[in-house]
Amino acid sequence: MRVHTDYLFFNTKKRQEFIRITDEIAAIVQKSRVADGMVLVSAMHITSGVYVNDWEEGLIDDFQKWLEKLAPSGLDYRHHQTGEDNADAHLKRTIMGHQVVLPITNGTLDLGPWEQVFYAEFDGRRKKRVVVKVMGTGEI
Amino acid sequence: MRVHTDYLFFNTKKRQEFIRITDEIAAIVQKSRVADGMVLVSAMHITSGVYVNDWEEGLIDDFQKWLEKLAPSGLDYRHHQTGEDNADAHLKRTIMGHQVVLPITNGTLDLGPWEQVFYAEFDGRRKKRVVVKVMGTGEI
Amino acid sequence: MRVHTDYLFFNTKKRQEFIRITDEIAAIVQKSRVADGMVLVSAMHITSGVYVNDWEEGLIDDFQKWLEKLAPSGLDYRHHQTGEDNADAHLKRTIMGHQVVLPITNGTLDLGPWEQVFYAEFDGRRKKRVVVKVMGTGEI
Repeated sequence: MRVHTDYLFFNTKKRQEFIRITDEIAAIVQKSRVADGMVLVSAMHITSGVYVNDWEEGLIDDFQKWLEKLAPSGLDYRHHQTGEDNADAHLKRTIMGHQVVLPITNGTLDLGPWEQVFYAEFDGRRKKRVVVKVMGTGEI
Repeated sequence: MRVHTDYLFFNTKKRQEFIRITDEIAAIVQKSRVADGMVLVSAMHITSGVYVNDWEEGLIDDFQKWLEKLAPSGLDYRHHQTGEDNADAHLKRTIMGHQVVLPITNGTLDLGPWEQVFYAEFDGRRKKRVVVKVMGTGEI
Repeated sequence: MRVHTDYLFFNTKKRQEFIRITDEIAAIVQKSRVADGMVLVSAMHITSGVYVNDWEEGLIDDFQKWLEKLAPSGLDYRHHQTGEDNADAHLKRTIMGHQVVLPITNGTLDLGPWEQVFYAEFDGRRKKRVVVKVMGTGEI
């Protein structure tokens, strides 16, 4: 049995930014030499998430507008009494999910044709991390 | 350590349909001969999901009406500029979740009394897949 | 390869209550003697959830008010025709998520500085369970 751990780092220019990370995850899976198993991809911060969906700019824009409607910024959240101003970021990342587990088969990510992995930043412009934990049986 | 991979196929008659798959997952777990571990059940398409909740027709109807309220179909989504008409399906599946990880104890799914696994289709009437990846220690 | 299973029990005084369980999960991970792997933490009931977010009372209050707005109690849900009155609890737990998978590195939970694990009860005042399944390679 093999277990391999890696981390991805982000420091987005914009407060909110969705970044495709499928290739980075695939590279870590290859490095792990796990042939058959799973990989956990999980945001280590509580105002960002990780999700699987379409790599299409229009849909990404739809997601962001939809999240703003469901969990608006700028409201009088109680969390802001601590000096923070990012309560909506905590809510938005909850809708999108903070982690995914991806199957590995024959040494590669076993994804459907349109599945792409994204890092969803809702309170960026500072250093953040995603943990990637690969687990499974050894070489093919 | 054992790893076993299987796939479930769906081709629903209706565009939106929730299908109970607990028994299918249990059968795959039995076939895997994993005694103690986990099973990942994950939609391979981005307009369907997998979730755990109650097997009660009224609640399933409540879920579907609620999702239509939170993520309405027929809006002028930017994703539709690509020729697609299913942006709401991407949003709805995000609310429900696209995957679950179920514990396996003593060779069977370790679920609570009311936990049932469902495949949630939001853009059906064509062939879709769910990947089932079982991982754990061998026979009991 | 090690697999260790444990259960947490809850019986909240209030119908809705969020309870921090990070320390309980950390103790189970330590007991498992898994050095490198993952732990699944999953609600076994369908009106409660498990999520990772901030340990800040204001934000917890924001979450609860937000969930009430997105999935109000007291509506005329079809599920209530069965005699139940908790349809909103099923919807709320769906937003929060019913499970998390946490990475284990060097024998401890590999969490970011603000990540805390919570049990989210939406229909309490009775005994409920969370399953904790640890899986990975043995001692450090």
